[in-house]
Amino acid sequence: MQLGLIGLGKMGGNMAERLRRDGHEVVGYDRNPASDRNVDSLEALAGALSAPRVVWVMVPSGEPTRATVASLGEVLEAGDIIIDGGNSRYTDDQAHAAELSGKGIRYLDVGVSGGVWGLTEGYALMVGGDADTVAVAQPIFDSLKPAGEGGFVHAGAVGAGHFTKMVHNGIEYGIMQAYGEGYELMKAVDLVADPDAVMASWAEGTVIRSWLLDLLILATKADPGLAQVRPYAQDSGEGRWTIEAAIENAVPLPVITAALFARFASRQTDSAAMKVVAALRNQFGGHAMGQEGSSAPVPVS
Amino acid sequence: MQLGLIGLGKMGGNMAERLRRDGHEVVGYDRNPASDRNVDSLEALAGALSAPRVVWVMVPSGEPTRATVASLGEVLEAGDIIIDGGNSRYTDDQAHAAELSGKGIRYLDVGVSGGVWGLTEGYALMVGGDADTVAVAQPIFDSLKPAGEGGFVHAGAVGAGHFTKMVHNGIEYGIMQAYGEGYELMKAVDLVADPDAVMASWAEGTVIRSWLLDLLILATKADPGLAQVRPYAQDSGEGRWTIEAAIENAVPLPVITAALFARFASRQTDSAAMKVVAALRNQFGGHAMGQEGSSAPVPVS
Amino acid sequence: MQLGLIGLGKMGGNMAERLRRDGHEVVGYDRNPASDRNVDSLEALAGALSAPRVVWVMVPSGEPTRATVASLGEVLEAGDIIIDGGNSRYTDDQAHAAELSGKGIRYLDVGVSGGVWGLTEGYALMVGGDADTVAVAQPIFDSLKPAGEGGFVHAGAVGAGHFTKMVHNGIEYGIMQAYGEGYELMKAVDLVADPDAVMASWAEGTVIRSWLLDLLILATKADPGLAQVRPYAQDSGEGRWTIEAAIENAVPLPVITAALFARFASRQTDSAAMKVVAALRNQFGGHAMGQEGSSAPVPVS
Amino acid sequence: MQLGLIGLGKMGGNMAERLRRDGHEVVGYDRNPASDRNVDSLEALAGALSAPRVVWVMVPSGEPTRATVASLGEVLEAGDIIIDGGNSRYTDDQAHAAELSGKGIRYLDVGVSGGVWGLTEGYALMVGGDADTVAVAQPIFDSLKPAGEGGFVHAGAVGAGHFTKMVHNGIEYGIMQAYGEGYELMKAVDLVADPDAVMASWAEGTVIRSWLLDLLILATKADPGLAQVRPYAQDSGEGRWTIEAAIENAVPLPVITAALFARFASRQTDSAAMKVVAALRNQFGGHAMGQEGSSAPVPVS
Repeated sequence: MQLGLIGLGKMGGNMAERLRRDGHEVVGYDRNPASDRNVDSLEALAGALSAPRVVWVMVPSGEPTRATVASLGEVLEAGDIIIDGGNSRYTDDQAHAAELSGKGIRYLDVGVSGGVWGLTEGYALMVGGDADTVAVAQPIFDSLKPAGEGGFVHAGAVGAGHFTKMVHNGIEYGIMQAYGEGYELMKAVDLVADPDAVMASWAEGTVIRSWLLDLLILATKADPGLAQVRPYAQDSGEGRWTIEAAIENAVPLPVITAALFARFASRQTDSAAMKVVAALRNQFGGHAMGQEGSSAPVPVS
Repeated sequence: MQLGLIGLGKMGGNMAERLRRDGHEVVGYDRNPASDRNVDSLEALAGALSAPRVVWVMVPSGEPTRATVASLGEVLEAGDIIIDGGNSRYTDDQAHAAELSGKGIRYLDVGVSGGVWGLTEGYALMVGGDADTVAVAQPIFDSLKPAGEGGFVHAGAVGAGHFTKMVHNGIEYGIMQAYGEGYELMKAVDLVADPDAVMASWAEGTVIRSWLLDLLILATKADPGLAQVRPYAQDSGEGRWTIEAAIENAVPLPVITAALFARFASRQTDSAAMKVVAALRNQFGGHAMGQEGSSAPVPVS
Repeated sequence: MQLGLIGLGKMGGNMAERLRRDGHEVVGYDRNPASDRNVDSLEALAGALSAPRVVWVMVPSGEPTRATVASLGEVLEAGDIIIDGGNSRYTDDQAHAAELSGKGIRYLDVGVSGGVWGLTEGYALMVGGDADTVAVAQPIFDSLKPAGEGGFVHAGAVGAGHFTKMVHNGIEYGIMQAYGEGYELMKAVDLVADPDAVMASWAEGTVIRSWLLDLLILATKADPGLAQVRPYAQDSGEGRWTIEAAIENAVPLPVITAALFARFASRQTDSAAMKVVAALRNQFGGHAMGQEGSSAPVPVS
Repeated sequence: MQLGLIGLGKMGGNMAERLRRDGHEVVGYDRNPASDRNVDSLEALAGALSAPRVVWVMVPSGEPTRATVASLGEVLEAGDIIIDGGNSRYTDDQAHAAELSGKGIRYLDVGVSGGVWGLTEGYALMVGGDADTVAVAQPIFDSLKPAGEGGFVHAGAVGAGHFTKMVHNGIEYGIMQAYGEGYELMKAVDLVADPDAVMASWAEGTVIRSWLLDLLILATKADPGLAQVRPYAQDSGEGRWTIEAAIENAVPLPVITAALFARFASRQTDSAAMKVVAALRNQFGGHAMGQEGSSAPVPVS
């Protein structure tokens, strides 16, 4: 089928290629003139597509997506469909759908997982919106998703696609941190000769084998002991939103939250909290101050 | 090769079968006369094996394993090899090896992962001991492990096998809890139509696909919404030991520990800690007492 | 000085009494006709006060406070001052001040701590707003605050009063949970003969003596072992907001968040997360299901 | 009464002074000849005391205390009493009491809180042992404890003194971290003009007023913003033991454990766990690496 695609960066470009390989007509637009765009404006994009148009937005979440959806609302017409395939917050979807419904423009939100591996392995898709609208875009989803039974779900009404992708990412935070903690403990003891080799062995037959473990093994093969990696981890927003959604619903998320906080702490250079702890120890005990790099307990004198 | 195997329960019995299928001669012993044992005492087991004997112990960890190893030490002789394949604490291995070395008996510890699936898929093995001893038993390891590159590692000196299996299980705690938290959050909101279907879709193409996720999907297919499962989770010891080892080495394990504590809390019926919190709220604020099942915040009047 | 006071419940009524004892003229209004109100409408309240009027709002946070501030905005005039002394979120303050500034009405937000003990001991006040406006209301603050150096702070611009009160409450969550955990551990061992007596002894000379500990000792004296308290703890909103503010600023709050999550978990009757963990254990290990009330580890058979 | 006191360091010296001010005869010994010792050997100490002797050991916990108690066991006789007032683990006490009971020597363990402030304010004492033995030493306890009702408890059998002091310290970890987290959050926002001033105001009238808060205010007055404090916090052992005891008894301690782990993390310079997280992000997303000091989320490109 025919699809307009806005955003031809790493993710959007790969998705366009996967769709074209499968016989779809993709009309691409990117605000960057140096991209492989087929048209040079949103108006031209609308003009190049037959109604009802289906336009997939694949730009950074937050303000760029909001601005793109708003602009699209100006050039599309009743019956057309906007699909936000970026990493938007589900609350943005609900606002977008409400705004566009006044014009009769339909809206879907799609959480996409797969990263740089999606081109060849397929993208897992979590879709939010009404069933009729999902049905229109189904050929696109079928081409993007991996072969096999899984990899696609109509998760619920508008917002459900990004909500479930957000939860997916929250789980991902927890799993990554779990592997990290285990690896660190193995590195901390002389008893384990080569933590990289142990992890590599876990790829088969264990309870904890996973795609993330496979990636971690690749990483340690390329960089033994992860010696070249700096111990600072960013977070991309979904982890924060997951916890906010949990708080709103009184759901305890101790593991996912601990994983996010470990990332926050990893980037700190001068924690005020730990200064308080150190200062208090000094106040009541006349203790020597702590120092970086020590691991043994320091008995009170 | 020839192997003595003590403990013919679910794990031991399956392992014996997998070894025999691969051409090994397994002489089995179990203290239970109703088992498929080949001999009826440890002495008979020693008599049935050619020196240097290799005897695999597969009995519950703790006292049963310690007693079995001690008894074996009485009936074996210098040059023989005892392999503890159970879930012992690595500190037990170090004690066993030290005791047995006086008699010239060699010792290996093997962490085994795979559970009920190991018979057909193979068992992942993490081995501790000296390289010469490992080499003697290598044919056994080769038959037990899964096909493929992974699934076996000589992790280090005596204790390293159970230490790395312990870390494996600690990681497992974190991963299981991460999936659980995400599932609970999806169930808590109306927006997600069917959390089971979302999880099933994650099996392919996502960043969080894993063997544990596959098992969870099986569980939800057999019991939609996990309606028949009671929300109490046991712990088997390795999680506790992982945290103790981390504390000894000043390694922070926030995720693995949160997962263990969630299990502890799941089994509590009358938490004294939460009574303190409830009692304090009442003292300083004259608040109404909390109640089971509520999720909205209760503003201070 | 003269003060209008809206909301004559437990907190508002006590504050009116403390102010009158100190010579202030308090004109009280409550929408409940059965209250000790002096006037029966906001219009009458405005009419009873001399300009520039100072009106303190002491009603439940959220919609009730927002509605009251909006209505006050209709009956007050330029130069008048509205003080929100409730438990509003600091973002509400910033919205209120922006709305009212168009009419020239000034705004202060005050976080108030002290609960039922404030009438006699004084209320700790954290104030947000500009310095000139704070100066006008200072006689009121001086009468409400405790004797001594502390108990009052001009914390910053509008919102800073409720922000710092919110942080105060977040800290309170952490401290309460810390005492709770310690108490529970003492109750879990036979070695400690009477945990109540130990806590009572901590009131003097220890590093952890505090007002909350004093309250806890009162609670255990009234109800030994807290036998009559149900182990469910509500949360009043500020804890949730504290974590949301921390996430927004990438500040790790492991202790405060763990305390909030413990409250969430205390009110759950059927945790989906723990069902996942229990179901997974059963899948890979053929384990017996967990059960409520057990504390020993369950070895894998 | 007459007391032998071993260990005349900061704590021991101050305690000797407090006891002498109250009329007790303290015979002091320290292995350091430069100390104010009254005798120059344990034999001389035993010779200088009338039977039944009471000897208080106040030396670093672990090996120094174990060695001192063992040596004392050689020079004392049946009916004498050894009191370990250091920071020993409660399991050491149980071993000491068992060893000494064969010789008829009695044993008490005392957890002492108060630090450098104890000389003037008194020391809080938590005592383990049998009631008859406690009664013999009661005059000493009465002089060391603060004036007032609290500050002393006979907590249970041998070990209960150090167990409850250990729990006290665990609680202390949680409280310190709670203040630290709140302070850090206030420092992270521009809205709060001066976090030091807010904390100072909390000393009176608030729910969270405490002795630790008073100390923290002292610390910020001496060093505004804690600018001179390095953000590394040691731990002295009791926090670790608290968590180990909790794990043994299946008691969840999320707050106390989070506080200990925050200290561990504060001293790390190169966290392997965070390297894993950073490496994985790079593997699946082609993300830019994280960097120290950043706080905003980094959207996936």
